[in-house]
Amino acid sequence: MVRLILSLLIAIGPICNAEFVIKAYDDIYKFPIYGINDTLATTSALGNKVTTPANKDECALSPDLVEEIRGYQETVDSIIEYIVNGDYKGRTYNILAELVDTFGPRMTGSGQLEAAIDWMLEKSHEEGLENVHTEDVSVPHWVRNNESAWMVLPRLHKLNMLGLGSSVGTPPEGIRAEVLVVKDFEDLEQNAHLAAGKIVVYNPPWVSYGETVQYRSSGATRAAEVGAVASLIRTVGPFSINSPHTGHQYYGNASAKIPTACITVEDASMMERMQKRGQKIEVLLTMGAMNYPDFISRNSIVEVEGLEWPDETVVVSGHLDSWDVGQGAMDDGGGAMISWNAAVVLHRLSLRPRRTLQAILWTGEEQGLIGGQAYFDKHSSKKEKYQMLMESDIGTFSPLGLAFSGNSEATCIVKEILKLLKSLNTTEVVSPMDGGPDIEVWQRAGVPTASLYNENEKYFWFHHSDGDTMSVEDPDTLDKCLALWTSFAYVAADITHKIPQIQVQQEESRVTTTAP
Amino acid sequence: MVRLILSLLIAIGPICNAEFVIKAYDDIYKFPIYGINDTLATTSALGNKVTTPANKDECALSPDLVEEIRGYQETVDSIIEYIVNGDYKGRTYNILAELVDTFGPRMTGSGQLEAAIDWMLEKSHEEGLENVHTEDVSVPHWVRNNESAWMVLPRLHKLNMLGLGSSVGTPPEGIRAEVLVVKDFEDLEQNAHLAAGKIVVYNPPWVSYGETVQYRSSGATRAAEVGAVASLIRTVGPFSINSPHTGHQYYGNASAKIPTACITVEDASMMERMQKRGQKIEVLLTMGAMNYPDFISRNSIVEVEGLEWPDETVVVSGHLDSWDVGQGAMDDGGGAMISWNAAVVLHRLSLRPRRTLQAILWTGEEQGLIGGQAYFDKHSSKKEKYQMLMESDIGTFSPLGLAFSGNSEATCIVKEILKLLKSLNTTEVVSPMDGGPDIEVWQRAGVPTASLYNENEKYFWFHHSDGDTMSVEDPDTLDKCLALWTSFAYVAADITHKIPQIQVQQEESRVTTTAP
Ligand SMILES: [Zn+2]
Ligand SMILES: [Zn+2]
Repeated sequence: MVRLILSLLIAIGPICNAEFVIKAYDDIYKFPIYGINDTLATTSALGNKVTTPANKDECALSPDLVEEIRGYQETVDSIIEYIVNGDYKGRTYNILAELVDTFGPRMTGSGQLEAAIDWMLEKSHEEGLENVHTEDVSVPHWVRNNESAWMVLPRLHKLNMLGLGSSVGTPPEGIRAEVLVVKDFEDLEQNAHLAAGKIVVYNPPWVSYGETVQYRSSGATRAAEVGAVASLIRTVGPFSINSPHTGHQYYGNASAKIPTACITVEDASMMERMQKRGQKIEVLLTMGAMNYPDFISRNSIVEVEGLEWPDETVVVSGHLDSWDVGQGAMDDGGGAMISWNAAVVLHRLSLRPRRTLQAILWTGEEQGLIGGQAYFDKHSSKKEKYQMLMESDIGTFSPLGLAFSGNSEATCIVKEILKLLKSLNTTEVVSPMDGGPDIEVWQRAGVPTASLYNENEKYFWFHHSDGDTMSVEDPDTLDKCLALWTSFAYVAADITHKIPQIQVQQEESRVTTTAP
Repeated sequence: MVRLILSLLIAIGPICNAEFVIKAYDDIYKFPIYGINDTLATTSALGNKVTTPANKDECALSPDLVEEIRGYQETVDSIIEYIVNGDYKGRTYNILAELVDTFGPRMTGSGQLEAAIDWMLEKSHEEGLENVHTEDVSVPHWVRNNESAWMVLPRLHKLNMLGLGSSVGTPPEGIRAEVLVVKDFEDLEQNAHLAAGKIVVYNPPWVSYGETVQYRSSGATRAAEVGAVASLIRTVGPFSINSPHTGHQYYGNASAKIPTACITVEDASMMERMQKRGQKIEVLLTMGAMNYPDFISRNSIVEVEGLEWPDETVVVSGHLDSWDVGQGAMDDGGGAMISWNAAVVLHRLSLRPRRTLQAILWTGEEQGLIGGQAYFDKHSSKKEKYQMLMESDIGTFSPLGLAFSGNSEATCIVKEILKLLKSLNTTEVVSPMDGGPDIEVWQRAGVPTASLYNENEKYFWFHHSDGDTMSVEDPDTLDKCLALWTSFAYVAADITHKIPQIQVQQEESRVTTTAP
C-alpha cells in the first residue's frame, strides 16, 4: 500500500497546476527546489504531480564528487551483470514466489505474517546477513471473517464485496436497508435528508488514487453523520473485472461507527442506473468483521555492516504485510524482496560499503503505516546518521529510475549516481518521492528519501484485490528493479560525501491524514 | 459466445500461414476466392486468420450495380445521422442496460431468459414491428447450483472457480484428491501413468481462443480417459484479475463423465510452481451441478416486411441467452440489441426495403448453438431466398466494418455497400466471417454471411466471466455499431441485385466440432 501527503499535495491534486504543487512542496521545507521552467510535470500512478527536476547543467557538484561517483561504474556494472545475467538471475522472482505461494496473504495480526517473518529471518541467517533482528511493533488486529452482500431489490443479485479494514461488523442477521446512491460527498450533502436509515453507496468516478481514496478513507464516517446505517464504496481503481478492492478506512472521532465495504465498479454503476430509473434498491449486508486488541508484530531488519562509518545508514525497504486477499505479491512482496535481496547481493559479492546498508521489511503498513512510524519513533533522534531511506511500494514493474525528495544538491547527487545505470535505462529522477509510505515521515523530517520509479500504470488494477498475485510480476523485470535498487543503495552508502538533509522549521513526527 | 470451424481452420491455426488458411477455406467451397498476393492476413480475436480480400481494382461489378449502390448514400447518411446524432442517440445502450439490469444473466433454461424473451416481444409489439413471433427450440438445461474448490494442501486456499456447462456434479461431500498439473494434452499423455485417481489441472498458456479452448471443450474427457476423477482448466483468456471464465464442455462419447470446472490463471500457475517444487497438492472440489431434461425455449423473430420480395430475407441477429455469470452485456447483449434496434430504426424511419429484414434473438447459443441450428433445420430448404445472414457475437466495441464469407462477387458487393459508411470509418471487409456462431451453418451451406468486425482485442478479458457487464459497453460506440449494422442490412435488403451464393458440393448441415 501507499501513503500520501494528503493534506499538502493530494488535497489540491486535480485542481492545481505543477507550479502550485512545487510551491506547496517547497513550503514544507521552506526551501526553494526548482523553478517551474526547469521541470516537466507528469502525474504518477498515485495521482501526484511528479516533476523531472534540475537539468544536468544546473547541477554544480564538485568535480571531485562527480569523479568519485563515476569511479563506481565498474562496480555497478558487475552488480548489474550478476543480477541480470549472472548467478542471481531469476532469484528474486523465485524467492518472492516461494514466499507468496507458501504463506499466501500476510495480513497484520495473522499467523501467516508472523510465519513469513520467521521464514525471512531464517533465510537471512542462512545467507549470513548481519545483525539479523526484529523490532516489536504493536499493531491493530482486524479480522474480516465471513461477509456477503446481496442486492435483494429490484432483483436478487450477489454483490462481489470486501469489507474495509477496521470496519465494525453487522449484527449476525445483517443489515437490510434501502440504498441511496451518491456520486460524491457534495451529492451526499445535497441528499442528506434522504440518507437516514439507508445504506449509502458511493459511486465516484476514478480520478486518481490520491483523489478517489477519500471515499474509502472517510466514506463511512461521512455517511454516518447523515444517519446512514452502512456504506458501500465503489472500488478505488481505474479498471475492474467485477473485482472489489479492500483497504483501510478511518472512523476518526465519529460518534457512530457503521459497517463499510467495497463493491465493484460494475455493481455500483448498475445501482446508480436503477436509482435514476426510479427503482427501489435494497441491499442485505452481512459482515462478521471484528477488531481485536492490538497484537505484537515485528519489523524485520538485516544489515550489511558499514566498513568505515557503521553507525551511518542507507535503508532499503518494503512492507512484508499485505491485505488478506490476493497474495500481496505486488503490494508489497516485490518491494520487500528487492530490498532484502539487495542486502543479499552485496553480501554475496563481498561489497561492503563505508556506511551500513539496512534492509527493512515493515509490518503493519496496510493498517496505517504502523511499522514505519514505530521505526521512526525509535530511531529519528539519530536522523543525521541516515544518509538516505528508500522504499519500494508502488510496484516493481519496468524500472525507470527513482522518485526522490531532497534539496537541489541531494537531487544532483542522485542524478549523478543514476547515470551509472545507463545500461539499464533507469536514469530518471522525478520529485517528490512518490510511493514510499513507511519512510514518508523521514521525508517530512528533511532526510533524503527515494522510491522506485517504475511503469506502474496498472498498479491500481490489482491493488488490494484478489488479483495481487505472482501473475503481476515478471522475473526479468524484478531483476532489473533489483539491479537498480542494489547499485544505487551501494553507491549511496559508499560515497565519501554526506548527502545533505533539509533543515525543517516545523517538524511533524506524524502525518495525520494518510491512505495506505 | 462464438463458434469455430475447428476442424478446418482452427485445428491448423497456430501452425499455418495465411496461404494455407485461404486454401483450406477455398477447399470447403471448391471455389477460388483470392490469391494470397492480394490479401493482408491478420489474426482475429478468435485466433482465426482473417484477410482483407480483393482490392477495389479487382472488383468488376456492373456499373449499373455500382451506381445503384452509390444511390443509397443519402439514405444511409440519414440513418447514421438519426442514430449517432439524432433522436435515437444513446437508445441502444439504454435498452441494453435496462435488459441487463432488469433480468441479469439469461441462462438457457432459466426463468430470467424466458422473462427477457417476453420483455423483448412486448417491446417489439410496442414498437409496431411486424410478424413478431417465436419458434420453439428444445434446449439443454444445466444448472450450476452451489459449488466451490479449495486447495487444502500444501496450504488452505480458496480457489475462485466456475463449473463448466454440462459438467456433472460431485458427490455432496465433494471430491478430495491429489492434483496433477499438466501444460497440455501432450504433457497429459506423457504423465498418463500418474493421473489415476487424481484431479488433473490444465495450465496451458493462452495462445488464442480457437487454440486454447480445446482444454475447456474436451479436457474432462481426456482426463477421464487416463483415470482422473475430476479436471480443472485454467481460464481460457489472455488476462485475469483472478477471474474464472465458464463455458461449455463436451463429454462426447466418454465412458466416464467426471466433474470439471475452470480456475484462474493465477491459481493454476501457482499449482504448477508448487508441483515443480515437489510439493504435494490436494484440492477439494464440490459441485452441485445438475443436468435436467431438455427445456423448451424460443428464438425470437421480428420483421420489417419486404415491399417487393417479402419472401426474400436479410437476417440480423445476436443471441439473447448468456452464461449465468456476469450479465451477458457483451456476450451477447450488445449483438442482440444492435440487431433488434436495426429493425426498430428502419420501422421508425419508414424505411421498408424490397426484401424482408428479419431480426432474430437466438436462444441456447451458449449450450451448443442450439437456437441457430434449429432455425437452420427449419428454414434451410429455402436457402436461396436468403440474401444474407448477419450475426454480431464477438463484441460491440469500436466498429471497423464486416467480416464476410461469400464468393468474389459477393465480397465486392459488400465492399461497395460499406463505402457508404465512410463517414463512420467502418469500411473494412475481412474474410472469412469470424464470430457469427449461430449462422455459421448457413455459411457452410454457401449462403453469404457477415459478422461485426470491431476492435475487440479485450473481448476475452470479460467473456463468460463476472466481468461481462455494462461497464464493457459504451453508448456512442454502440450507436456506431448500430448505424453500420442498420445501414448495411437496409441496403443489402433493398438492392435489386441478388447477392450470389456459393454452390456447395458436399453440404454439411451440422458442424460437429464447435466451441460456443
Ligand atoms: Zn503497499
Ligand atoms: Zn456469444
